[in-house]
Amino acid sequence: MSQTPPNAIININGQIHLDPLAAVMPVFDRSYLYGDSLYEVCRSERGKFLQMKEHLERLSVSARLAHMTLGQPLEEYARQMELTRQAFNSRPGNAEMDVYCRLVVSRGTGRIGFSEANLLTPTTYAIIVQPLVKPTEDHYRKGLKLQVVDRLRLDPRALSPAIKSGNYLNCVLAYLEATANGFDDALLCNADGHITEGTTFNLFYVKRGILVTSPLDIGILDGITRRTLLELAQANGIETREVRFPKERLYEADEVFWCSTLKIAMPVVNIDGKVIADGREGPMTRQMRELFVRKVG
Amino acid sequence: MSQTPPNAIININGQIHLDPLAAVMPVFDRSYLYGDSLYEVCRSERGKFLQMKEHLERLSVSARLAHMTLGQPLEEYARQMELTRQAFNSRPGNAEMDVYCRLVVSRGTGRIGFSEANLLTPTTYAIIVQPLVKPTEDHYRKGLKLQVVDRLRLDPRALSPAIKSGNYLNCVLAYLEATANGFDDALLCNADGHITEGTTFNLFYVKRGILVTSPLDIGILDGITRRTLLELAQANGIETREVRFPKERLYEADEVFWCSTLKIAMPVVNIDGKVIADGREGPMTRQMRELFVRKVG
Repeated sequence: MSQTPPNAIININGQIHLDPLAAVMPVFDRSYLYGDSLYEVCRSERGKFLQMKEHLERLSVSARLAHMTLGQPLEEYARQMELTRQAFNSRPGNAEMDVYCRLVVSRGTGRIGFSEANLLTPTTYAIIVQPLVKPTEDHYRKGLKLQVVDRLRLDPRALSPAIKSGNYLNCVLAYLEATANGFDDALLCNADGHITEGTTFNLFYVKRGILVTSPLDIGILDGITRRTLLELAQANGIETREVRFPKERLYEADEVFWCSTLKIAMPVVNIDGKVIADGREGPMTRQMRELFVRKVG
Repeated sequence: MSQTPPNAIININGQIHLDPLAAVMPVFDRSYLYGDSLYEVCRSERGKFLQMKEHLERLSVSARLAHMTLGQPLEEYARQMELTRQAFNSRPGNAEMDVYCRLVVSRGTGRIGFSEANLLTPTTYAIIVQPLVKPTEDHYRKGLKLQVVDRLRLDPRALSPAIKSGNYLNCVLAYLEATANGFDDALLCNADGHITEGTTFNLFYVKRGILVTSPLDIGILDGITRRTLLELAQANGIETREVRFPKERLYEADEVFWCSTLKIAMPVVNIDGKVIADGREGPMTRQMRELFVRKVG
């Protein structure tokens, strides 16, 4: 275990903390007690957050699905994220750094028990800003090895993966299982054996020039990168399909890629020990990433 | 919203805090970020914790199922819970109070990301001790009204309810739905329409003198009160069955009761607006509670 605390600046309910481990929340916070919180992650490029509006709009969708009333207007979260990024970028040596920014909004701090009457505060929030770790060209060339784990993705009738929440144990356990087996990360199916998504990412595959991904109604996160890539493909004459498929479709695909805010479009070159096509980044994966970078950053 | 902080004493990693809102955890704690934590709740009766051994053994089962290595031996958690209870009971006015004690063990504090390599600490823990709010005779006489909500209980193939974890949003949302509809709390079914358990309790019903409850393999918490009541029934010549059943069985039952560490055996007199039998506490419910109190406390 490493002993150095993370190089991060944290904003708690509007107060900026320069020492990350001094940035704390009461144990009576609902996020600590129940994972009863929502979050978003966005990144900055040359001092500007990308797709911030889309991220905050999704936060409000998560809040609606979780019956949570946000304590601040979206503009205030945006302003506080921006202030925290500025505090980070104004630190010696940090001026040029692109950042990773995580906003966590909890239902609040109060007493034990689920009733809203137990809350002493409306929602509370924490904003964590730290250096962005970007995949290198080498990472993109090498690609990733995934395992389709036995553990199922949460059934949306129990807890919708469309809520980007602090209940992340389903994916934490999937990740630990896949990495214990020597893979980089995990993919999860639903009870019907259809691929849903990865632990922190949506998935695409390419077959005969068609870009395929699981539909939202299977119970996955409405990924902003996923959505943007679908729009970019359509705008560029690439056929897209949102359909349910079993893992075997991936084994036979021409290309597979992971998509997320942090990795954009990252080649998956091996699934369950089976090499995908020639085991290298495919042309559509690269094209989609280039289209994304050109459009968004 | 109430503005008084809870009357509680909290132990964080072996340090006792007298001011509950000063008892804090870094936002980098896994319980705050991911709900990646386990917990147990026990109560004391006249200065002695009840069934502490059973609770700590279940913590170690949760840890095994969640691939978490506890940072302390079970005896050390027991010792710290006892020290915290003593600190609470030695406060002016608190000497005679029975306590509620919640132990939360998180996978640790570290960096964002699921890898264990990101942890800066082994597991961290918080122990919350506060006054026990016991149901009164009036509560037991009045009983509770429950709703079988549309939301399903977590599928054990996705995240087992046998792990008593900090991922509680499934039940928080079930609770909010049922209480918004005027009920006291919620019951949840699985995808086959069989009753699993409540948000913080197991369920029993009585029909023609037989005590019935859902089987563990349906995907429920292995409740310590549930288990003790089944043993007590068998030792007292009461027939028991652990079988799957739809909600209609409850509507037609002679008695229904909620069981948990805090309520022992609490009558449920109304489900989905349907009055159960004559809408009053049944004799078996009372007998089971009396047997429990005589045996355990």
